[in-house]
Amino acid sequence: MTKTTKIPKATITRLSIYYRQIELLEFDGYRMVSSEKLAWLCQVNSAQVRKDLGYFGEFGVRGVGYDVIDLQAQIKKILAVNRDWNLAIAGIGNLGSAFMEHQNLVTRGFKCMAAFDNDPRKIGEITPSGLKIKDISELDQTIDELNIEIGVITTPPSAAQAVADLFIDSQVNAILNFSPTRIHVPDCCMVENIDFTVRLDILTYKLHHEIRI
Amino acid sequence: MTKTTKIPKATITRLSIYYRQIELLEFDGYRMVSSEKLAWLCQVNSAQVRKDLGYFGEFGVRGVGYDVIDLQAQIKKILAVNRDWNLAIAGIGNLGSAFMEHQNLVTRGFKCMAAFDNDPRKIGEITPSGLKIKDISELDQTIDELNIEIGVITTPPSAAQAVADLFIDSQVNAILNFSPTRIHVPDCCMVENIDFTVRLDILTYKLHHEIRI
Repeated sequence: MTKTTKIPKATITRLSIYYRQIELLEFDGYRMVSSEKLAWLCQVNSAQVRKDLGYFGEFGVRGVGYDVIDLQAQIKKILAVNRDWNLAIAGIGNLGSAFMEHQNLVTRGFKCMAAFDNDPRKIGEITPSGLKIKDISELDQTIDELNIEIGVITTPPSAAQAVADLFIDSQVNAILNFSPTRIHVPDCCMVENIDFTVRLDILTYKLHHEIRI
Repeated sequence: MTKTTKIPKATITRLSIYYRQIELLEFDGYRMVSSEKLAWLCQVNSAQVRKDLGYFGEFGVRGVGYDVIDLQAQIKKILAVNRDWNLAIAGIGNLGSAFMEHQNLVTRGFKCMAAFDNDPRKIGEITPSGLKIKDISELDQTIDELNIEIGVITTPPSAAQAVADLFIDSQVNAILNFSPTRIHVPDCCMVENIDFTVRLDILTYKLHHEIRI
């Protein structure tokens, strides 16, 4: 793998999306896929597919396409999802529970190892996946014990920054934030924010302009 | 507004993200913002900001920047979120409940007007937002009565396609799909899929390569 420092974030996002489509193709029995077909499935153009993959090497055969199994393996390696990652989640309301139950999480090697809340009524309860909800004050110790690498925040907005600070103090440098608020983190830490309403804006734009983009 | 048919989807997504940052800037008391500052906040480059906004006209003043209030209004108009949109949601488990409770939904003018499930234990229950959960068999009639324009799917994967078909039969042509499965829709319909794990892949990529993109 070369030139990784120059890879645009949009390329990484698309690789992740390509991966999901290739997985579905394999499930449907395909052995090969052309960049045109993959592009169509992912709603990008085929030059984009070739450019994105081109950052990481030569995976396809001209005129034939990409081997579905091989390309999956290559993208998994690039995205570093060819191994399991340990997650901890803070805020076990509906959203936190939904996240933990999400089918894709386990199939993609994301293991939710610890769940935290500050509500005494929730602490000590067992989640459907068998985790005992811990007091948020135990976060630091737990993260160290369980080798947590990614923190997930599903708290109300008012608690999100404090929880992020706890994760960061515990050397968790990657945060997935579902809370609709801005989180400030030092340069050593990275945050990905999930805001459902961005996707709704895309739908409203299309509905209003009555076009497909 | 001109040239809308040529606007890339990525531009629309970024407009939505710009809007959220500008809103936060206003909240923090800013009156003006430069394309450089906006770009930095949104983790893109300033030429991209200018290009994206340039599709829709001249909003900024050279050397001064963009008026925070004015730019918000313009982007809202472009995205067609300067009015309310009526949503219906199908699948009232943890994820569906979390979606309905999501604070950003109402503040952005997305009104969840109807909730559906097929579980007799849930049908008839009242959600925290005051909606009576309806039998999925009532979807068609309800959508017509309440002028629903966007359908949200938070069912298990096995039910997602059937629910999408119901929405489409009821002339709902925009679907936000949280279910981790592929939904097939006719050309008249559009689907935005939400997959949390794409964002986790970005974090794992960064963690593995120890870079910030």
